[in-house]
Amino acid sequence: MSFLQTLTTFATPQPQTTKYVKVLHRPSGFNEAVQSMQYAVRGQLVLRAQELSRQLDAGAELPFSSVIYCNIGNPQSVGQTPITFIRQCVAAVTCPSLLDTSALPSDVISRAREFLEDSHGVGAYSESKGVYSIRKRIAEAIARRDGYPSNPDTVYLSNGASEAVKALLQITIRNSQDGVMTPIPQYPLYSASLTALSGRQVGYYLDEQNDWSLNIHELQRSLDNARVEGTQVRAIVVINPGNPTGQVLSRENMEDIIRFCERENLVLMADEVYQKNIYTKEKPFISFKKVLRDLNSPVELASFHSVSKGVMGECGLRGGYVELVNTERDVEELLYKVMSVSLCSNLVGQFAMDLMMTPPKEGEPSYELYKTETDGIFNDLKSKAAMLCDSLNTLAGVTCNKSEGAMYLFPRIALPEKAMIEAKKRGYACADVLYCMELLDATGICVVPGSGFGQKEGTLHFRTTFLPPKEAIDDVMKRLRKFHEQFLLSYS
Amino acid sequence: MSFLQTLTTFATPQPQTTKYVKVLHRPSGFNEAVQSMQYAVRGQLVLRAQELSRQLDAGAELPFSSVIYCNIGNPQSVGQTPITFIRQCVAAVTCPSLLDTSALPSDVISRAREFLEDSHGVGAYSESKGVYSIRKRIAEAIARRDGYPSNPDTVYLSNGASEAVKALLQITIRNSQDGVMTPIPQYPLYSASLTALSGRQVGYYLDEQNDWSLNIHELQRSLDNARVEGTQVRAIVVINPGNPTGQVLSRENMEDIIRFCERENLVLMADEVYQKNIYTKEKPFISFKKVLRDLNSPVELASFHSVSKGVMGECGLRGGYVELVNTERDVEELLYKVMSVSLCSNLVGQFAMDLMMTPPKEGEPSYELYKTETDGIFNDLKSKAAMLCDSLNTLAGVTCNKSEGAMYLFPRIALPEKAMIEAKKRGYACADVLYCMELLDATGICVVPGSGFGQKEGTLHFRTTFLPPKEAIDDVMKRLRKFHEQFLLSYS
Repeated sequence: MSFLQTLTTFATPQPQTTKYVKVLHRPSGFNEAVQSMQYAVRGQLVLRAQELSRQLDAGAELPFSSVIYCNIGNPQSVGQTPITFIRQCVAAVTCPSLLDTSALPSDVISRAREFLEDSHGVGAYSESKGVYSIRKRIAEAIARRDGYPSNPDTVYLSNGASEAVKALLQITIRNSQDGVMTPIPQYPLYSASLTALSGRQVGYYLDEQNDWSLNIHELQRSLDNARVEGTQVRAIVVINPGNPTGQVLSRENMEDIIRFCERENLVLMADEVYQKNIYTKEKPFISFKKVLRDLNSPVELASFHSVSKGVMGECGLRGGYVELVNTERDVEELLYKVMSVSLCSNLVGQFAMDLMMTPPKEGEPSYELYKTETDGIFNDLKSKAAMLCDSLNTLAGVTCNKSEGAMYLFPRIALPEKAMIEAKKRGYACADVLYCMELLDATGICVVPGSGFGQKEGTLHFRTTFLPPKEAIDDVMKRLRKFHEQFLLSYS
Repeated sequence: MSFLQTLTTFATPQPQTTKYVKVLHRPSGFNEAVQSMQYAVRGQLVLRAQELSRQLDAGAELPFSSVIYCNIGNPQSVGQTPITFIRQCVAAVTCPSLLDTSALPSDVISRAREFLEDSHGVGAYSESKGVYSIRKRIAEAIARRDGYPSNPDTVYLSNGASEAVKALLQITIRNSQDGVMTPIPQYPLYSASLTALSGRQVGYYLDEQNDWSLNIHELQRSLDNARVEGTQVRAIVVINPGNPTGQVLSRENMEDIIRFCERENLVLMADEVYQKNIYTKEKPFISFKKVLRDLNSPVELASFHSVSKGVMGECGLRGGYVELVNTERDVEELLYKVMSVSLCSNLVGQFAMDLMMTPPKEGEPSYELYKTETDGIFNDLKSKAAMLCDSLNTLAGVTCNKSEGAMYLFPRIALPEKAMIEAKKRGYACADVLYCMELLDATGICVVPGSGFGQKEGTLHFRTTFLPPKEAIDDVMKRLRKFHEQFLLSYS
């Protein structure tokens, strides 16, 4: 063992020489709100999965040879190949000497040169909102998408969409009486951020019986309830396409939501990061911005987007943006200030967002390959979504709505009474945690319990992605079926 | 004008169709703490500078032909060239097809392959703390630096150091009685974050008469004062090398600070992002971790580092880390949870941090060029620091301590009474704002008023970087001298 290995392997003993008492300790030494935060997609299941992965790497004998991560929408971690055009452009701006080689297509070179001319390169802080010319091109792409103008000054680039969501919530929540409506089930970024801000999560249920649709009467019920309880409801989060549910909103439904916001004086926070992941012809993606403008509505809107989803799935680059619509100048300035304390989002992520919004056009040298790669990934996602859903529906006690969009399925599972009792005994929040934990230990499949997203009382679910390669999904289903039968048997 | 230009140039009129009243508006519609935040390095001066830059781009006639940004430590925005080794490695992992060309040195290729084998590439979310093998190599580098072990599990990679600082403060501040000691002057990340968290900033003055040194009696005075006022002082921030002051702490001084923390039960937050920017032989950089271990002290320590500084200056990549030392397991888990809500920091930044901590070694193919480039930048910084300081000291009423480290000078300026009156009339917080604003308008030089960092009452300063190329610094001094004389004259 080398000197350095010795240094990093063993902790030094630390004899207490003074009366020093640790300042940061549970329960009273931490910020309470932060302690209460829950974030299931990176929670105990995932930590256990990482532990099992390391055991396998170290040669341990487990009932499976690999952990399959279906817990998170992280396509490249389960084998999806990056889009060549994006990577060539990023490499070219990172290492501009590549521009002088003949290794890159001419449109890649011109996109890279344009970025380098309009910025100080990927190594310099940009303006806090992001490089101006990138925001301008993104605004143009939004305008093309919606047929309505977009203002580059109200587009804010961020490290993934998460950072922008957190900044908006931070501005919105003024005190512990303030609340924000979120779907149930929802993506835990919203619940966790609201908890950290000591704000209130005002849940509205999506209708599982009707393909997880969003019922406007349920919105009203939830809002009225919250108000009776003294909550100042400030905003509503709508995730379209849905996470974890995969539902896509109809235009009618979106109009109703906007009128609801107008009537009830709410900010609309539209999580639209899965806008390119739509697998049904009947419901194309329509942005809330477009419907808002069509209705000529004054509702304040924040629309979020990200390079992590779509078919690029460039999660690790951490690119994203929020567009503010109908907001007052002062909120725009305040958001600028919040973003400026982090200086700016990373420049590679900014550039990737730019490329995602304005991909190669027909006739450009990179177009054919770009189209082949993106179509391939898209069609693959679409067929895997259907395939996994169909299989899940063949399991005893499992019902699963089809995924119209996004990257997830959220099957409902009926579990025997004995499993409920066992879960309680082990101190789990819900019996779906027991199910997912045993699934992981028996098969290496990592999914997230429905309780991490919220669900109607008395129902149990889990969320799974359909991102692994087809062969792996076949394998998942085989392992899952065997486990499921044994689980039901052992708790029957 | 094209259709798209029309779309993006003009805002649509929005006739109010309902009783909708904007939810997010000043003063009562925002989170109050966030509104109160101040962040001078990206504040009104900088917005004005950006405005002037755009005017110049549009062909406006101004008294100068370019804006010189001396407001922020952003080397590549003022012409510093990226280090080839870093950029080659990043390009190779971004676009792995480059690995098969002969364009890259063999050590670049092996570093890139190692990264790709140990991770899912730059396009996948990593573990929330960062890629394990990167944290392991960083821990090894820390161990080499200090001669003490470092645990990869308590190294957290972040988007720049800022994100980690904010996360630590978020955990530490429990309520509006809690406070954190910060130097005065300080880097406004600390004051802004504390304000946003409704915590208290407990300032301790650095001693300008003695080269901005940190006096332990002043620490005690500040702490005792705060306690009398009912503040629960939880931690102390020490910036070494100093920002904006450039002072480097002596080992003795550091020992005193650690003993102070021990006696008074404080967490030590050590901002060590300028550890490679030391321009004095008498005071080499020593990490707080090393002194802590030498003293066998139980004090909880968080040490921050970043790829944005040093000689790389890769600000736009947003890489950074915090190492926790002597902390309880539960605070480590809590920090993990906070970081996990953002999923992970950007992978390019993670890899850049890795490369910065373990650069090419003697004998490796990239070593010679790496050494030439980094030595060149370092020597240039060192001589520009001395040159600008000497020049500043020749101006009437200006005294400037020399910069022992970091990237800044913080000259004190004596301004005439009439300037004070004029500043008050214009509603500026301090007369140094007037000075900096007029400097910008007259010369295009953008610096930050001392009041943005905090300063002893009755004193005025500004912070300037010494990052622009030598010729530009000559030019800065010429423009500044002329302006300074005229300013004194016009307010005399």
